[in-house]
Amino acid sequence: MTALIVVSNRGPVTYERDESGARVERRGGGGLATALRGLRERSEVTWIASATTDEDRVVAREGKPGDAVVMLAHDPAAYDAYYNTIANPLLWFAHHSLWGLATRPDIDRTTRTAWTDGYAAVNRAFADAVVAELDNRPDAVVFFNDYHLYLAPRFVRDRKPDALLAHFMHVPWPADLSVLPPWMRAAILDGLLANDVVTFHTERWARNFATTCGDPGRTLVTHHPISVDVAELDRLRDDPEVLEREASLVEGRSEKVILRVDRTDPSKNIVRGFRAFRLLLAEHREWHGRVTMLAFLDPSRQAIPEYVEYLATVEREVSEINEQYRRADWLPVDLRVQDDFPRSVAAYKQFDVLFVNAVFDGLNLVAKEAPLVNTRDGVLVLSENAGAYEELGEWAVAVSPFDIAGQAEALHRALTMDAAERGRRASAIREQVRAHDVTAWLDALLGDLEQVSRNVRA
Amino acid sequence: MTALIVVSNRGPVTYERDESGARVERRGGGGLATALRGLRERSEVTWIASATTDEDRVVAREGKPGDAVVMLAHDPAAYDAYYNTIANPLLWFAHHSLWGLATRPDIDRTTRTAWTDGYAAVNRAFADAVVAELDNRPDAVVFFNDYHLYLAPRFVRDRKPDALLAHFMHVPWPADLSVLPPWMRAAILDGLLANDVVTFHTERWARNFATTCGDPGRTLVTHHPISVDVAELDRLRDDPEVLEREASLVEGRSEKVILRVDRTDPSKNIVRGFRAFRLLLAEHREWHGRVTMLAFLDPSRQAIPEYVEYLATVEREVSEINEQYRRADWLPVDLRVQDDFPRSVAAYKQFDVLFVNAVFDGLNLVAKEAPLVNTRDGVLVLSENAGAYEELGEWAVAVSPFDIAGQAEALHRALTMDAAERGRRASAIREQVRAHDVTAWLDALLGDLEQVSRNVRA
Repeated sequence: MTALIVVSNRGPVTYERDESGARVERRGGGGLATALRGLRERSEVTWIASATTDEDRVVAREGKPGDAVVMLAHDPAAYDAYYNTIANPLLWFAHHSLWGLATRPDIDRTTRTAWTDGYAAVNRAFADAVVAELDNRPDAVVFFNDYHLYLAPRFVRDRKPDALLAHFMHVPWPADLSVLPPWMRAAILDGLLANDVVTFHTERWARNFATTCGDPGRTLVTHHPISVDVAELDRLRDDPEVLEREASLVEGRSEKVILRVDRTDPSKNIVRGFRAFRLLLAEHREWHGRVTMLAFLDPSRQAIPEYVEYLATVEREVSEINEQYRRADWLPVDLRVQDDFPRSVAAYKQFDVLFVNAVFDGLNLVAKEAPLVNTRDGVLVLSENAGAYEELGEWAVAVSPFDIAGQAEALHRALTMDAAERGRRASAIREQVRAHDVTAWLDALLGDLEQVSRNVRA
Repeated sequence: MTALIVVSNRGPVTYERDESGARVERRGGGGLATALRGLRERSEVTWIASATTDEDRVVAREGKPGDAVVMLAHDPAAYDAYYNTIANPLLWFAHHSLWGLATRPDIDRTTRTAWTDGYAAVNRAFADAVVAELDNRPDAVVFFNDYHLYLAPRFVRDRKPDALLAHFMHVPWPADLSVLPPWMRAAILDGLLANDVVTFHTERWARNFATTCGDPGRTLVTHHPISVDVAELDRLRDDPEVLEREASLVEGRSEKVILRVDRTDPSKNIVRGFRAFRLLLAEHREWHGRVTMLAFLDPSRQAIPEYVEYLATVEREVSEINEQYRRADWLPVDLRVQDDFPRSVAAYKQFDVLFVNAVFDGLNLVAKEAPLVNTRDGVLVLSENAGAYEELGEWAVAVSPFDIAGQAEALHRALTMDAAERGRRASAIREQVRAHDVTAWLDALLGDLEQVSRNVRA
């Protein structure tokens, strides 16, 4: 395999200075960075990403073609418009069907300016950096990621007609994209179809994309669900930090633990999840004192009003449930709003029910990570609108994200499922994830590239 | 053509008592009643509908098979659950993609009870009445209407395996119906596919339906856009009531009139329409004092909180615009919240720009009615998500319902379009509507029925 240029808004690392003033590398979070880390063992990888810390911006200034990580220091106002007006919430909400169309969104002059001076400008900066790398390594394959970078492929294609360009979409493609005005839809499709390959997690998203774009021309449209690094999770399950947190979880645990681990994103459907749990408690008094919902929530995008408001609603809902039902020896909902991956892994090992009820979700990696290390044959309750449903749905208890009564019933069913049935389902999920891990995903992506490469460069 | 049994929630007439105590018939509003009135001249029609007035309920008690209008007096609580919980807002909002899915809807126990004890119960009452009519006239064709009656066809089919059943859908079919939980979707599809024919206004809705239901089995899925009664509108344009209102409109009119005529429904996108007009005034001072937006709004579904809130937002928006821009001799927005069809027809004759910016709309009859009687070669500004767009889009100025800046630009373009271009477009729309009037629509529906009848009864 030839050299790769990976392009994503968030990089695999960020840079900071420690107390001694020395530069230190911090691994970035998120499934993408984790999944693509494996790429580095397979080919020469240059990764182009936005600078997000002060030290990143220093790295950006020092950078030269050929660096393993190229940081782009965007104009702050342009980046803010690109990230906080266009990419989120506008595109993210469109992809996850979150807008209440009667009143939102308003595409106005601010949006248009944010599009041209922010989104397009940042995409052009990414394209410039890609072209500089391609000047250096003309045979490198370019691998764009996600909805932040819709325009960059066309900007590159115009200057590098023979480059091999691929784009992976981590978000759902909705059945109807008409919430975006025609000029925006046209620009997005034009950009995406400047790639040789566009890949989604699932057949459903790929089919929706095909419906939106009609004839994809010479672009190959494929779907391969991202997956987890099995070896890393196998290592993490016995990591001292994880074991320490697990011990503290086990010490105070209820008979049954329902777990959710999410960013505080409206697409994750956290509020309806609590309402379902509340209905479970209202209808099944036998669970009082015996079941706890652990909710580990990573605060997300708090520069965006919709996200601030959503987190407030989440916290209000939890307060109400705990006020209504708590006892001296029992807290119904244990909410932690903080990013602590070792604690999440500890909880992965200890859940009886894993609750993933997303409104829409490109894939949902938690649904793969948590069952892999779970020790209690826990049951997966899974939204039919999570991408992971296509792969794991047959072993999960399915829920509609809008059906609170249905979710309460699903939780009860999962809590009361007999051991043999739980064991059968849990082991099927583990086998599926082990057999289709992140390595298999990378193989599939590289396979697409080779196929296209043969066609393009034949 | 054989006898017809038309089934719809609202009937062609309602009954009241005048001062002398005598029963009087009032013609029902709405496009359906108007469109289907023509059916009565073609075949023997029995119309089954819900009683909505006290006198309707008296008629219901007196009714017998064979009556021209059969009124069904439902249990008030069941009807309330059927109409105000399930049909509106739940199904209506789902069909028009109006839910902000992060937080709404909540399908809870109330919804489930409303479904079984309200929606299903009322559908069963409709089915019982249909079966009674079919016992009387076994060869009659049954013609169901719209989203209120999804379950009735299956209930009838179970008892009348050989009956000929058709269903016309007046609302859009959305690209993704997953906002409704699987059990509800399954019941809806099972009911619809108990029909021999299911018809939509447009190819787009029919295609979306095909995507949702997969294999429609033996059901024929077609699309024929409803249309207007040209003869009646030709008569109305010179009706004394219309002429009186037109005189008063002409007396005070601005140089240019932008007109919208809608129910106060969030799907109609009234608030964004005003924001677009406001942006037009902010960016084009040359229109101050010269253009008025006439908004004739029919108050709708005020038993439903979402509708009350929406109307309040509409009124607030208008107040703000008028406070900001009004002059002694100029009111920017002339808002009338009242149902007055003669006044609407008067305004149809007088507009320079007809503004139809619906979020989604099954068809939108105003887009056909108003240009037909307009006397000023007015320009149609039309949402790409209105069903009428499929038929009239090429002669309209298209807008995205979410793009306020785009709508402001479209209004300016329509206001400044040269006379020759306006004339060309306006006359093309008139010709299209005259050639494809409600008679043509009825012909097409009856043609489908004959085709299916040959297949079924061959």
